This record gives sequence, structure tokens and C-alpha cells, in this order.
Amino acid sequence: MSGTESPVLAVLCGGQHPPDMQPIEQAALVRYTDATGLPGALRDADALFVYDFLSTAVRAAWPSANRLRWLHIASAGVDPVMFPALRDSDVVLTNSRGVFDGAIAEYVLGQILAFAKDFATSLRLQDERTWRHRESERIQGRSVLVVGTGPIGRAIARLLRAAGMSVAGAGRTPRTGDPDFGTVHASDRLAECLPTADYVVAVAPLTEQTKGMFDVTAFAAMRQGARFINVGRGELVVTGDLVEALRSGQLGGAALDVFDTEPLPVDSPLWTMDNVLISPHMSGDFAGWRTALVEVFADNFRRWLAGEPLHNVVDKRLGYVPSS
Amino acid sequence: MSGTESPVLAVLCGGQHPPDMQPIEQAALVRYTDATGLPGALRDADALFVYDFLSTAVRAAWPSANRLRWLHIASAGVDPVMFPALRDSDVVLTNSRGVFDGAIAEYVLGQILAFAKDFATSLRLQDERTWRHRESERIQGRSVLVVGTGPIGRAIARLLRAAGMSVAGAGRTPRTGDPDFGTVHASDRLAECLPTADYVVAVAPLTEQTKGMFDVTAFAAMRQGARFINVGRGELVVTGDLVEALRSGQLGGAALDVFDTEPLPVDSPLWTMDNVLISPHMSGDFAGWRTALVEVFADNFRRWLAGEPLHNVVDKRLGYVPSS
Repeated sequence: MSGTESPVLAVLCGGQHPPDMQPIEQAALVRYTDATGLPGALRDADALFVYDFLSTAVRAAWPSANRLRWLHIASAGVDPVMFPALRDSDVVLTNSRGVFDGAIAEYVLGQILAFAKDFATSLRLQDERTWRHRESERIQGRSVLVVGTGPIGRAIARLLRAAGMSVAGAGRTPRTGDPDFGTVHASDRLAECLPTADYVVAVAPLTEQTKGMFDVTAFAAMRQGARFINVGRGELVVTGDLVEALRSGQLGGAALDVFDTEPLPVDSPLWTMDNVLISPHMSGDFAGWRTALVEVFADNFRRWLAGEPLHNVVDKRLGYVPSS
Repeated sequence: MSGTESPVLAVLCGGQHPPDMQPIEQAALVRYTDATGLPGALRDADALFVYDFLSTAVRAAWPSANRLRWLHIASAGVDPVMFPALRDSDVVLTNSRGVFDGAIAEYVLGQILAFAKDFATSLRLQDERTWRHRESERIQGRSVLVVGTGPIGRAIARLLRAAGMSVAGAGRTPRTGDPDFGTVHASDRLAECLPTADYVVAVAPLTEQTKGMFDVTAFAAMRQGARFINVGRGELVVTGDLVEALRSGQLGGAALDVFDTEPLPVDSPLWTMDNVLISPHMSGDFAGWRTALVEVFADNFRRWLAGEPLHNVVDKRLGYVPSS
């Protein structure tokens, strides 16, 4: 920062302010706002902290961002702010890469075990006080394809491999000998690697290239009875095609934490399908996540004030932070 | 075997005969029986294969076992046949150590993740088509005490450690530097190590020493809110004390695969407790387990015919196969 004036920081938050902002409030003029107030808060603001990370309000308010130099979003996925005017601007975009990795990996392993050990049936039988012995599946040696090789995908691969599963990845750059994935297949040739997997995990960033990548063709390419787990973005999936693949038995099950419309509408057929496990976009949100998100922002804020290079700078053409 | 006569093998099975017995039927006169027919089947039998491994019928039929030299049980726990007359006899007792280890370890990890990620609430909300975001817990770094350091406990420890948890054991011989457990505490001084654990896993063999070891004193010694997982035997637990510890909030939850009465009676208060996950004694029973059990028996049967040392010989004073 040059000059002696405090910089102006706009914070887009819903009902809930971020915690632990006192140190930042001492170094900047902080304007907390919601979507309605965002255009006003952006005027003459130097930085924007998108704490309400699923909000798409930034796009409409963008014309008011006359002085913005930095936008930080409290999520790993930056798709809610990837509109052309931001992409083409000089505004630096950073994300919260790293906060959610371990929690999401644990979530995915838990969902795989829930399928293999049929916890949903156990719980439903428990509600009826019914004792009904069934056989379960092993996860050891079962194959998983993790589609998305960023830090979250990598954490998933590491944990599943540690638990005895056979893991491969699909990403932009095909390669072998990756320390976490072993083989990484080309994600634009997904149909070639999908047939090998008992479990397919979607964790790719949402971009023009990945939108709708899990469609009727992809589901048809999967092993019959395979399970699909989405902890990335709902829009990676053509939901109607997923529903049909589940209905026909082509897919054995799906664990879905994200949806193309959130909250999932009450009339969605997904709610009542026996082989679907639904959770409300919470896979990464461990107790303490809000504090951790503000820590990541605060660290970058300190760097920004000091004129140091920021962490987690998004390549706005790619739509994510490239792996180093 | 001496002489040319085929040995007589009694097989105690319920409604379901063991699979893949043809090779054994070619080498022995096999008498399949249920509890009622057991005394007759045991007369002049040389060996007994207890395939119906939860049956306690052997004790009553024992006076008919006039020529028995070997008893093999299709389970890891041998408590159903540990009555004094067998213990004091020269009959060699072998078990099915090894078949269930990996499956039970996966089950325990799954139940821990189900607690941490609150899958039960997600499923109940799904049944109501209700979207309600909650925070979840990490398992990384959480502490687990595995009570029972036999092969199943060891497989549990290895898997939980691989998944990032902090593991210790409790067993007969306290020690440090164990490759799987790190520290093994003395299981007869359980109250001293219970307070350190977020999760306590019961997988000890059921013996006179371990019966009822999880009682009001043990539950009171646990960290408030700790979760208790029983994949050993129901009789390790004083069920009334467990129910009270769950009701009072001293325990945060319990995942129970075994019970002192099985099937769990319909009027058990455990069925309807929100923080209890019930499964019907199935944690080790992966698809293929029956075949695997017969393989273990068939291997020992071949050794027995050839006069070779048997695998998995139980120390009948201890009530389990001592670690080598």
C-alpha cells in the first residue's frame, strides 16, 4: 500500500459475519455487506473478500468496482466469480485452496465405506427395529477414479490409497508415476478410463470445459453398478442423465454433496432414491472451517498490505490455481 | 491319520450348509447336523467343524464326543465352545483367525467416519427432503483406543493409523513401540488409558477376564462425549451401564455390531437412541466370507489328515490364539 490512508475492504457476507476480523479491521476500513448493498460497498473499495462464497452477486455489482485490485473468495471453487469482466480485468483473484482438502477426503472415504457396508440400510432397518443380517463389501483393492487432480483430489487420492484402494486420477495433463494418483488419465478422454472404476469421484473445478462432463455418455461408459460421488460442483453433472443412470441400474449408487440448484429442490427425484446419499454441501465444512477460512484470508491480507506476492492466485483463464 | 478308514467329521450347521465341501467329503465321512442332531453326530466322530459359530449347542452334546480329537470353529471368537469339559480335554481347538480382520477394520473406520460426518442425520433429513447444513468433524489426529490386540485389533489399528488417527491399544501385555499400536496399555488397568480416547473400540476376546469389562466404571472413565464401538462380543459390555452412559451424555455415541442377546430384542432401548448405530453382527461378513471360512477349515483339515501341525490353535486357558 502506498500513502497513509487505510485501504477499503468490502466483505460480502450473508447473515453471518466472518469471525476473527478484528486485526483486519485495525488495518482497513471494512464494509460488511450483503448482495443488495454490494454495489455501494464496492465503490472505491480496494479489495473484496467474498465470504458468502456461493453468492453470484459480484457479477451484477461489478460496474461499481472502480478501484478494486484484489478479490479473495472463501472457497476452493471460483466459478461464482468467473464472469468475463472479472476475467478480463487486472483484478487479482485468490482462493482458499487447502482449507477443505482433508475434510473432503475424509468425507469421500466415509461415503465409500457407507456404500460398501450398506449403512443406509442398517439405519433404515434400525428405525424399524429389524435385525436383518446382510453381507457387505470390502473396499480394499477396489478401484477409484478421481476426476480432478487439484489439492482436494490429491488429498482424496492419498487417503483412499492409504485405506487400501486402487486409485487413478483424471486431469488436464495425463502422466504416470504421480506420487498420489499413480496414473493420471486425460480428463478430456474420460470415456476411456471410466470403465475401470468401481467408484468415480468428481472434484474437478467448474469451468467451460468441465461443465456437464458427467452426462449420459460418461455414465454409460462406467462399469455397471459403479458408484458416483460428487464433492465438486453440481454443474459438473447433467442431473437428468444421472437420475436416469441411477434408475436404470447402470449406476449402483451416488453420494452427492453438491447440486446444480442448492438447496436441492424439494421435488427433486434424487431425494427419494434408495441408492442415493444426499448431503447439503457440507463435505468440507469441519468444525473450525470458518476460522480457517479467515486465517487464509488474513494471511493474504497481510501480504497484500506489505506488497508481498499473494498465495493461491487463480489463473483466470484456467479457472483455478495451477499446481506448482 | 492311522489306518485306512475314513475319519468321521461332524459339521454343526444351521439351515445353511457350508459351501465347497466336496473335497472334504471325499476324504471323510461327513455328518451335517443341527443342534438337535449333534449328540448323535458326535458319537464316534473324530473331528467337529462348528460352522454355525454362534451356536452354544456343543456344550450339551459334549458327553457324546467319545472319540473327538479336533474341533474347528468358523469364527475368531471361541467363547461359544469355551466350557470347562472342552477346556480340560485333550481335544485340539482351532479358530478362523484372519478371515474377518480386514473387513472389520473397514467397518470400524466407516463407523468412525459416520459419526464424524454425521451420516445418520443426513440420511434422516434426506427422508424428510430437508436441506440443513451442519458442520462436521475431522478424524485426522483424533485418538482411538483399541481394546484387544489380536489380529483384528491390529488390522483396525493399522487402518485407522493410515487414515490419520492417533491410535493406542490395550491388551494383556503392556508395551511401547508396537508397530501397529505404538503404545499398548494394560487392559486390566483400563481406567487409566480410557480418558485419552475420542473413540474406544472393543475387540477383545470374550473370556472370564474380559466379560463385562465395559461397565459403569469404564464408561465414567471415558472422555465426556467419547464414542464407543463394539465389534467384539456383546458380553464385553454391561448393557444397562452402556444405555445409561448414552442417556446421560457421558458417551457421545455408540456403534454396536454385537449384543449380549442376538438378535437384539425388539424392546431394547438401544434401537431408538439417536446416537446409536446398530448393525446385525455383520461387520466381518464381506461377500465371500463363507467361502473364505471353509478355505481356512479345509487347509487345516488337509494338515490334520497329513498329521501336520494345525494353524490357529487356541490356547484353551487363555481363550484365544496367542500372538506369535
